[in-house]
Amino acid sequence: MEQRTELNALGEFALIKHLTQYFIPQHESTIKGIGDDAAIVSSDGVHDQVVTTDLLIEGVHFDLMYTPLKHLGYKAVAVNVSDICAMNARPKYITVSFAVSNRFSLEAMEELYSGMQLACEKYGVDLIGGDTSSAPSGLMISITAIGEVLPEKVVTRDGAKLNDLIVVSGDLGGAYLGLQVLEREKEVYKSTPSIQPDLSGFDYLLQRQLKPEARMDVLQFLSDLKIQPTAMIDVSDGLSSDLMHIAKQSMLGCDIYENKIPLAPDTIRVAADFGLDPLTCALNGGEDYELLFTITQTDYEKIKGSPHFSIIGHMTEESTGCRLITKSNEAFNLQAQGWQAFKE
Amino acid sequence: MEQRTELNALGEFALIKHLTQYFIPQHESTIKGIGDDAAIVSSDGVHDQVVTTDLLIEGVHFDLMYTPLKHLGYKAVAVNVSDICAMNARPKYITVSFAVSNRFSLEAMEELYSGMQLACEKYGVDLIGGDTSSAPSGLMISITAIGEVLPEKVVTRDGAKLNDLIVVSGDLGGAYLGLQVLEREKEVYKSTPSIQPDLSGFDYLLQRQLKPEARMDVLQFLSDLKIQPTAMIDVSDGLSSDLMHIAKQSMLGCDIYENKIPLAPDTIRVAADFGLDPLTCALNGGEDYELLFTITQTDYEKIKGSPHFSIIGHMTEESTGCRLITKSNEAFNLQAQGWQAFKE
Repeated sequence: MEQRTELNALGEFALIKHLTQYFIPQHESTIKGIGDDAAIVSSDGVHDQVVTTDLLIEGVHFDLMYTPLKHLGYKAVAVNVSDICAMNARPKYITVSFAVSNRFSLEAMEELYSGMQLACEKYGVDLIGGDTSSAPSGLMISITAIGEVLPEKVVTRDGAKLNDLIVVSGDLGGAYLGLQVLEREKEVYKSTPSIQPDLSGFDYLLQRQLKPEARMDVLQFLSDLKIQPTAMIDVSDGLSSDLMHIAKQSMLGCDIYENKIPLAPDTIRVAADFGLDPLTCALNGGEDYELLFTITQTDYEKIKGSPHFSIIGHMTEESTGCRLITKSNEAFNLQAQGWQAFKE
Repeated sequence: MEQRTELNALGEFALIKHLTQYFIPQHESTIKGIGDDAAIVSSDGVHDQVVTTDLLIEGVHFDLMYTPLKHLGYKAVAVNVSDICAMNARPKYITVSFAVSNRFSLEAMEELYSGMQLACEKYGVDLIGGDTSSAPSGLMISITAIGEVLPEKVVTRDGAKLNDLIVVSGDLGGAYLGLQVLEREKEVYKSTPSIQPDLSGFDYLLQRQLKPEARMDVLQFLSDLKIQPTAMIDVSDGLSSDLMHIAKQSMLGCDIYENKIPLAPDTIRVAADFGLDPLTCALNGGEDYELLFTITQTDYEKIKGSPHFSIIGHMTEESTGCRLITKSNEAFNLQAQGWQAFKE
């Protein structure tokens, strides 16, 4: 009998690594292939190019019961731009493909594209191509984004050094709580369709979930502060999972401090409503699309007063592992409990 | 009541044009966006870059009942490489994303990737990125390919001039007949599963359908002959539809001659078996992935003896329209009856 291994046996990152292990780059210009926020290829000009691609599948990545198509279009572009930013690069071009069932009308697709157009204008990205198809069910969006960066400016996940400071922009956990609010109202609606969903007072968290922004502004802040991060990633899977990528690829450990993790007041308040620990939301929630990066200790003075950043810890020896240091000074190993594309 | 327009009301090309009409390129480096085989962007180096993207959806673009996953992987890469070739460019990089239901095992995906790997090696393409996801149903593949070309060498669809000769590589209609053979055996199998499918004697046509090649070799032939095409497209939708793209975008008409259309002996033989006109298969079948291009009359002497090419007609005034001249010297208007991604 033929062997059958389920796809979820490996986890998403190991799956891609497994499937692509025999692909050997043939071009010297391929500087970095699979394994970072984006690939890096050198052109014969001044800039290198970075390339990233993302799938958004209905029922897996989004729920149209509470996601307006315009927001979805905006988010689809923003999350790809975020991957480009995580390489310290500027986004320039995207291609957008979609496959849809006949459940979707032209007017629905116009909504989707109006959101994408807003994001393209906001981030200065040109839509240069795409493909469309019917599909047996649902809506599927595939986006590829291309950006450019000076070779000496590019930042990967593997460049963190021992004792580097760990910094994150904005605040964390909000997008996950926004999702909880939406899921709760969906359940209410399903059991009692006559009740209007009550989303008042959740503006910030809903915006974090439904209309996240790529932190292109952070690249400018860093440039203004004359800071070149040593490693960087965007927080898409959750702080724990994403920080562990930096640590693993830099062959280091890390310590982060509970009392340094940035949480918005709304995150703390609504987490309490749901009986959730806001710290757990920040560590494992994901989809915040903040930039998480490391800097040399000598850059501390440059960044310490900035309202845009929180210094949350530092890189340690690999043997120490990745740890959360609590307020009571206990150390717990971080766990990658982030997003899994292949669930049981 | 809200208006609802079905997506198939417009046709695929008009749909993309409609949805993207308000997207204004912001970068001067965006030379050509949507509307050719690939987009063209200038880098700050010697070469321009071309970018193309394609979706392959189970049940729409392929049927796994008779498509081996390894062949599908090969074809998925080849059709994107073909789009790059149609710009007279060399493919360099691809990203591959897929979404699958839990019907698919790891071993199945290994098969798919082994085919893609073969194609990457054959065409000299580096796999640099991708995304994976579960999906509610079926298998969906999204590929983006990036190539490079010297700015003076790039060929678009809109450069044909009056009286230019129309040339096509290889032969046409075979891929469509390969599909008919496979569909016939599928019906036999469905009605009588105990009968083994009989595919003997159809090797050429099945290869045309299941494992098409991108004609990168044609670019070398043209370069050796010192021919720079004035316009080019790959035959994916069918000769009629694809030639009409060149004519329309070049604001010209065209005449092609029935007795010049290249047909393989197997195509003629099997078309007869199926009671089909092989010429119709060539005009409307599609998926041949040959290169269709125009050249100036002065290049006639260079190409006339080549075994790789057929000169099938010439460009005419726009007012004449796009015509097929039959053996009995009758003129019929060509019709774009090619592939439709959104069927009724």
